[in-house]
Amino acid sequence: MNGMACKNPAMVQASDFAFRGLHIPGNTSNALGSRVTPVAVTQIPGLNTLGISMVRIDYAPWGINSLHTHPRATEILTVIEGSLEVGFVTSNPENRHITKILKKGDVFIFPVGLIHYQRNIGYGNAVAIAALSSQNPGVITIANTIFGSKPDISTDLLAKAFQVDKSVVWQLQAKF
Amino acid sequence: MNGMACKNPAMVQASDFAFRGLHIPGNTSNALGSRVTPVAVTQIPGLNTLGISMVRIDYAPWGINSLHTHPRATEILTVIEGSLEVGFVTSNPENRHITKILKKGDVFIFPVGLIHYQRNIGYGNAVAIAALSSQNPGVITIANTIFGSKPDISTDLLAKAFQVDKSVVWQLQAKF
Amino acid sequence: MNGMACKNPAMVQASDFAFRGLHIPGNTSNALGSRVTPVAVTQIPGLNTLGISMVRIDYAPWGINSLHTHPRATEILTVIEGSLEVGFVTSNPENRHITKILKKGDVFIFPVGLIHYQRNIGYGNAVAIAALSSQNPGVITIANTIFGSKPDISTDLLAKAFQVDKSVVWQLQAKF
Amino acid sequence: MNGMACKNPAMVQASDFAFRGLHIPGNTSNALGSRVTPVAVTQIPGLNTLGISMVRIDYAPWGINSLHTHPRATEILTVIEGSLEVGFVTSNPENRHITKILKKGDVFIFPVGLIHYQRNIGYGNAVAIAALSSQNPGVITIANTIFGSKPDISTDLLAKAFQVDKSVVWQLQAKF
Amino acid sequence: MNGMACKNPAMVQASDFAFRGLHIPGNTSNALGSRVTPVAVTQIPGLNTLGISMVRIDYAPWGINSLHTHPRATEILTVIEGSLEVGFVTSNPENRHITKILKKGDVFIFPVGLIHYQRNIGYGNAVAIAALSSQNPGVITIANTIFGSKPDISTDLLAKAFQVDKSVVWQLQAKF
Amino acid sequence: MNGMACKNPAMVQASDFAFRGLHIPGNTSNALGSRVTPVAVTQIPGLNTLGISMVRIDYAPWGINSLHTHPRATEILTVIEGSLEVGFVTSNPENRHITKILKKGDVFIFPVGLIHYQRNIGYGNAVAIAALSSQNPGVITIANTIFGSKPDISTDLLAKAFQVDKSVVWQLQAKF
Repeated sequence: MNGMACKNPAMVQASDFAFRGLHIPGNTSNALGSRVTPVAVTQIPGLNTLGISMVRIDYAPWGINSLHTHPRATEILTVIEGSLEVGFVTSNPENRHITKILKKGDVFIFPVGLIHYQRNIGYGNAVAIAALSSQNPGVITIANTIFGSKPDISTDLLAKAFQVDKSVVWQLQAKF
Repeated sequence: MNGMACKNPAMVQASDFAFRGLHIPGNTSNALGSRVTPVAVTQIPGLNTLGISMVRIDYAPWGINSLHTHPRATEILTVIEGSLEVGFVTSNPENRHITKILKKGDVFIFPVGLIHYQRNIGYGNAVAIAALSSQNPGVITIANTIFGSKPDISTDLLAKAFQVDKSVVWQLQAKF
Repeated sequence: MNGMACKNPAMVQASDFAFRGLHIPGNTSNALGSRVTPVAVTQIPGLNTLGISMVRIDYAPWGINSLHTHPRATEILTVIEGSLEVGFVTSNPENRHITKILKKGDVFIFPVGLIHYQRNIGYGNAVAIAALSSQNPGVITIANTIFGSKPDISTDLLAKAFQVDKSVVWQLQAKF
Repeated sequence: MNGMACKNPAMVQASDFAFRGLHIPGNTSNALGSRVTPVAVTQIPGLNTLGISMVRIDYAPWGINSLHTHPRATEILTVIEGSLEVGFVTSNPENRHITKILKKGDVFIFPVGLIHYQRNIGYGNAVAIAALSSQNPGVITIANTIFGSKPDISTDLLAKAFQVDKSVVWQLQAKF
Repeated sequence: MNGMACKNPAMVQASDFAFRGLHIPGNTSNALGSRVTPVAVTQIPGLNTLGISMVRIDYAPWGINSLHTHPRATEILTVIEGSLEVGFVTSNPENRHITKILKKGDVFIFPVGLIHYQRNIGYGNAVAIAALSSQNPGVITIANTIFGSKPDISTDLLAKAFQVDKSVVWQLQAKF
Repeated sequence: MNGMACKNPAMVQASDFAFRGLHIPGNTSNALGSRVTPVAVTQIPGLNTLGISMVRIDYAPWGINSLHTHPRATEILTVIEGSLEVGFVTSNPENRHITKILKKGDVFIFPVGLIHYQRNIGYGNAVAIAALSSQNPGVITIANTIFGSKPDISTDLLAKAFQVDKSVVWQLQAKF
């Protein structure tokens, strides 16, 4: 990653390539009912330049990993526990919504840069392990980006973009 | 581009590298008041594998080029006529809104994969020329992707993602 | 992947991005006591050009995933069940052996092209999920490559390379 | 760019992504009758690693943007004002000269590394906007490189390369 | 290379990776007194996508490998026999001429896209082996490109580019 | 190379791009009867980021350049003197051994990441010049990596990997 130098190969240690605790459930007591635990270059310095990272995702019943994109990575996800509804939307002009119900042991791909989501469709917890094709994939959560940026995007512009009254935009901005 | 073969170099002609008509104003009589005219690999076959493309963007007074991302390209834009408010939002967790007023001759960058927009902030037309770092950059318009995909993303999921009543989601979906 | 064309984006279906059955234990009744179940471009056509794949690895008690390299990928692995001894060896001239004991929830990196292994160090089964930074990472198992290629590498050469009698080489070649 | 570190994303400002003044005509009072105004990583630090840049080119009547190559970039150019004769030459052994007359609104591609030029073929000024597929494309002007390097390339070698008398070479070297 | 598919790995043969005859001197009976014998993807199909190729260069006494660039490759050259004057010129605005006398066993680098040359500076033959960082590096010989393209670049433009009379340009064009 | 900054282009000198002595035979008085003389980024700083390097390989009669891989490079080799048996083994599951006898002037390719070797099959010395598609290709010699790493890989694991008694492993480890 630009700005991080690689260690001298004669000095690296096993701990530069390791991380502990991906078996620990993330805390899903939040509005969306989900939690992402990342293992990327920030957590494992030895990942620098190597082009891969991993995450654990926990979902409370009916919890969602909200609509988001990774600007620099494709994602491959497998369900460890529970059932998930997953989907992504293709780019303009088709905007096709590709969706599937995943059970334990199912694997699904979210191609680089596309907006995607997962939702727990069961009354128990769900868990997924996913990997991303970058040591620093980035995450852009649509709702936070559009309605919760600092400073706000102008209400006029958002009202026009989503073709709604400003009052609807204010309602949305108030949440993020 | 995968699926398009390159021509034999001994057979290429000037017309394989050319396009006509980027001086012609696009029709902005639509809900957003803007029009993008692309010059990419679909318009110029000779661009295949060369990693660049161009667009002209026309804006009616107060028209917007709505919130979108290019999954495979950075964009560099210059204002030919009028004044634009432009912005992009950085990825999680900061979600910083980087914004600027551009006048004729100003240049601005939208880094690869980030959500961005432009808005004409004048009572006359505005025109921009922009270039993208891919022959096939892709466009993901947020509103169309989220609220206008085919088939729809489930109302339950969207209501949770944006933390609003389903009635608000229905209102949004009705527009796209 | 050279030789595989991408599908028209308007035609892709969810099944092009999905795979079933990664929760099913692999059959470890073999000489090494391990089994790798791959989910790569051969299993999911939609992975083509996307730069990532996944595997499940099952280990019988004391089973090993023998010394091997991936010529085109870095690997990130997490332990789902059991305990593993893992390691890789750095390139010449240091040939440092970087090794670690992993328990459930631990994550480890095997950098691209380096020779590495895992061994179950418990009396129960072990399971790992790993991801690789290529849709077609390739696997070169050292023992099979050196002593089991078709046709054989010459005994003279192997005897010199490993500085042993030809009888030792014959013994090794007989196994693969 | 090697040797330039990226800024911390939490610290970037709109001014890191902006440039002023591309509407200002460049001074074409020089032997070639043209002027290139670049907007690359030197002018916009935020372009670092993003793989794109832009230029404005002004041409006096009959002025030329002399024969040159960009070792690291393809160029896409559109005519804003006037008419241009443009061309590039393909590599050995064909050395095909691909040429075209461009009017206002026409777009043309110069593929990476090929020698190319533009010439104003009118009695008024001409203006083009072009983009390049690198934040640091480099420019190699053939005449300056061959006949104006510091120190000079040997006259003997140039005489043989261009198959002319040394006196012709001296005449050429005297100009650059 | 776009347009060439890779063979099925189960079908490749040793002959797909081999070439014969690089020890045979090239015929240097030509105006420049040199000959390049290439071993690239055209000669060895198995090189496709592998990013490297090789050449043998023969030089008659005082022969030159004329000024040229490789648009897609860096070159590393070693002298097998004789002595060579070699050089390259850096890009604008410095146009520094980096030059060196090489004897048998010396190695020199010509960075990607820069104009470079070699000259035999002895009364006997010289031979070099060089490698290029592409299976299809391309060669652009400056003199042939500028003064020998098909069709010709306009005399007016060349006269202005090199700041000489048209008669000098005609003289140069007559040679190529 | 990460950790090495590039020099300012205005400061580079010919010596940054040059190396002396590739005509000097390497000392082959060792157990394998071969010697590799590298010319890579450590020897020529100007190679940084340029993606190529060169080696000279000397072979005593019947000497071998033992089984090894380059994790970041394809190799192209030509025989300058003598005759070589060369080969590489394809990846799983085929493990095909592609082999050929090379005479003076023959050229052969070893694709990136595959295990390969050369052996002098004559009673005189042999010499090869090879180039690699990286300025820092890396070398992993199988025997040293497997049986001579520091610290040792566990004897139990190696006995299982190669399906031999521990006594055979001890014999092998004693040599490296």
